Amino acid sequence: MNRYSKETLVSVVTQLAAGMGVPVADAALFAEVLVDADVSGVSTHGVSRLNIYLKRIDLGLIDPRAKLNIDRQAGSVLVLDAGNGLGQIQARKALDLLMPMARQNGVATATIRNSQHFGALSWYANFAASQGMVLLAMTNCEPAMSPEGGYEAFFGTNPIAASFPTGKGFPVKIDLATSGVARGNIIAAQKKGQPIPPGWALDAQGNPTTDASQALLGTVLTMAGHKGYALAMMVELFSGVLSGSAIGPDVGSMYKNLDRKQDVGHFFCLFDVKAFLDYDEYLKRIDETIDRIKSSKKRPGVEEILVPGERSARKAAINNAEGVPVSPETIAEIEQWCSRLHVAFNCHEVVGQP
Amino acid sequence: MNRYSKETLVSVVTQLAAGMGVPVADAALFAEVLVDADVSGVSTHGVSRLNIYLKRIDLGLIDPRAKLNIDRQAGSVLVLDAGNGLGQIQARKALDLLMPMARQNGVATATIRNSQHFGALSWYANFAASQGMVLLAMTNCEPAMSPEGGYEAFFGTNPIAASFPTGKGFPVKIDLATSGVARGNIIAAQKKGQPIPPGWALDAQGNPTTDASQALLGTVLTMAGHKGYALAMMVELFSGVLSGSAIGPDVGSMYKNLDRKQDVGHFFCLFDVKAFLDYDEYLKRIDETIDRIKSSKKRPGVEEILVPGERSARKAAINNAEGVPVSPETIAEIEQWCSRLHVAFNCHEVVGQP
Repeated sequence: MNRYSKETLVSVVTQLAAGMGVPVADAALFAEVLVDADVSGVSTHGVSRLNIYLKRIDLGLIDPRAKLNIDRQAGSVLVLDAGNGLGQIQARKALDLLMPMARQNGVATATIRNSQHFGALSWYANFAASQGMVLLAMTNCEPAMSPEGGYEAFFGTNPIAASFPTGKGFPVKIDLATSGVARGNIIAAQKKGQPIPPGWALDAQGNPTTDASQALLGTVLTMAGHKGYALAMMVELFSGVLSGSAIGPDVGSMYKNLDRKQDVGHFFCLFDVKAFLDYDEYLKRIDETIDRIKSSKKRPGVEEILVPGERSARKAAINNAEGVPVSPETIAEIEQWCSRLHVAFNCHEVVGQP
Repeated sequence: MNRYSKETLVSVVTQLAAGMGVPVADAALFAEVLVDADVSGVSTHGVSRLNIYLKRIDLGLIDPRAKLNIDRQAGSVLVLDAGNGLGQIQARKALDLLMPMARQNGVATATIRNSQHFGALSWYANFAASQGMVLLAMTNCEPAMSPEGGYEAFFGTNPIAASFPTGKGFPVKIDLATSGVARGNIIAAQKKGQPIPPGWALDAQGNPTTDASQALLGTVLTMAGHKGYALAMMVELFSGVLSGSAIGPDVGSMYKNLDRKQDVGHFFCLFDVKAFLDYDEYLKRIDETIDRIKSSKKRPGVEEILVPGERSARKAAINNAEGVPVSPETIAEIEQWCSRLHVAFNCHEVVGQP
């Protein structure tokens, strides 16, 4: 796996999206979110997904020029329709609408229906944190997990995220799928032809499996059994039922359903820290909390206690300095699109190896 | 274990709290929340806790007459100070303040500092659901879990809850501790002199234990390792750091620290369903979601797929009809308080056995 400069990746993704009809300013937003996942070490949600997004635009399954429509606005709540556009663009625009509302009312909420897989939730949460706000974010996604006791894929891996600004140079970033593992890990294993550990997934008949391909046909297991089921249900109700999007099994699969839109639903709740307490006092409180956690007594063999978000912030610092690792498979996909859309991408512009 | 009528239990709890100086109307709120936990089958958060609440009032560690003070109100955010009063009363009053704000703005948020252990989160969430609203609720609590990689108790079992109204006669109720198991289960095992299963807890030296007493001196393990750690952190930041309450290890222990207040922090975010979509349409969507989950294919040996909240709703129906089970140990504690405070409680008024 080679490293590429962030600027090179953002530039090529922007040009490819624009080449498929996405307005250039929107394409730049899209590229920023996508490449940031790779920068932060979440390559499962980064440019490895570019191929399927472009393919779905090509098949007419995503509207590259979709507007974000306000279906309903009541007080501090926005009900939005993404118009089947790219989720990254629409979710970022939703945040731009929410921010002045949250500054005015202390809290503001949006649902977004008729959207797509929109990458890593933590991008939106971290962006809010960079503005002194806390975003609680959820999304439903294509069916992957069964309810506890079942074996039909009903829920997506329905993640929850929230990031909190700190004075430490990185936000505390909570971002977790309600599955035992994120489905992206199984996709990554399949792409590499590797088996998956036991306990991750059931096959299509409800049997445990370590075969990534079988697992992708079956269901991934919820985190902590019934607790993960309950959280997945909460995410589905906030982001699916409340938003007006498709629910559960009706959410289209990005990879499998190449004949219909996804109709994913997102849920954002944005809090302005300053509505709760003075910002300096807040920073003092969260920084002291981080310090106390990190100086906590360590279990044998543990070198350092990390707070959530610290590891990916360190990865991002390395990747920003040394270049962003992208797999050869993904580079090959990008080259094909570059060739088709006449975009220059010097894939030999390698800046390093991880 | 005998069954008692709900009315008998509410009456005796109200009288005992009033006998300790809680204004009668507040005492009735307190009793309602406490007894409802037993009715719903969550006896770990019900009248089994009455003894310690009364004891703490007696020791001057809880103010029975505390007012709920508004420290700050900005738009749709309330920053509240519980005045070291009983959490059940102050949290219920906070909800009463939030509801008109949520009806007006679609969403309203409160933090509550300087509070106590306030029973089962799901009571507040279910109450909101009964009013056509969705409450997302969190609370920090006395230290019980270490950060991933540590073994000092830092976080409480930091639960998350949300209930959603349905047309099914019960709300979908999500309510989970971010520990592998709720600490109340370990307390219950200790009271019964029973061991706990492996994987629930570490002792004070960081070793795995099945001894409930050792576990109560040590730490309970987070749900799903680092994922539970991340969620516990999120709960601590929303309900502790943002609220101005004590944080992590500074939260007083209800049972162990009989020399200082708890200073627990709660976090409520209340959503008015009607701000998002028409209520009839909402009910149709959630009821269909429930129906589809319940008719999902079942794993071998599974008789029925339940949605979160269904089991406790069934228990509540049984307990309302047949009487509420209360352990002999708890009844003995109640009798002692009745004797001291000259409250009549015919503990032989048994209405049935479970």
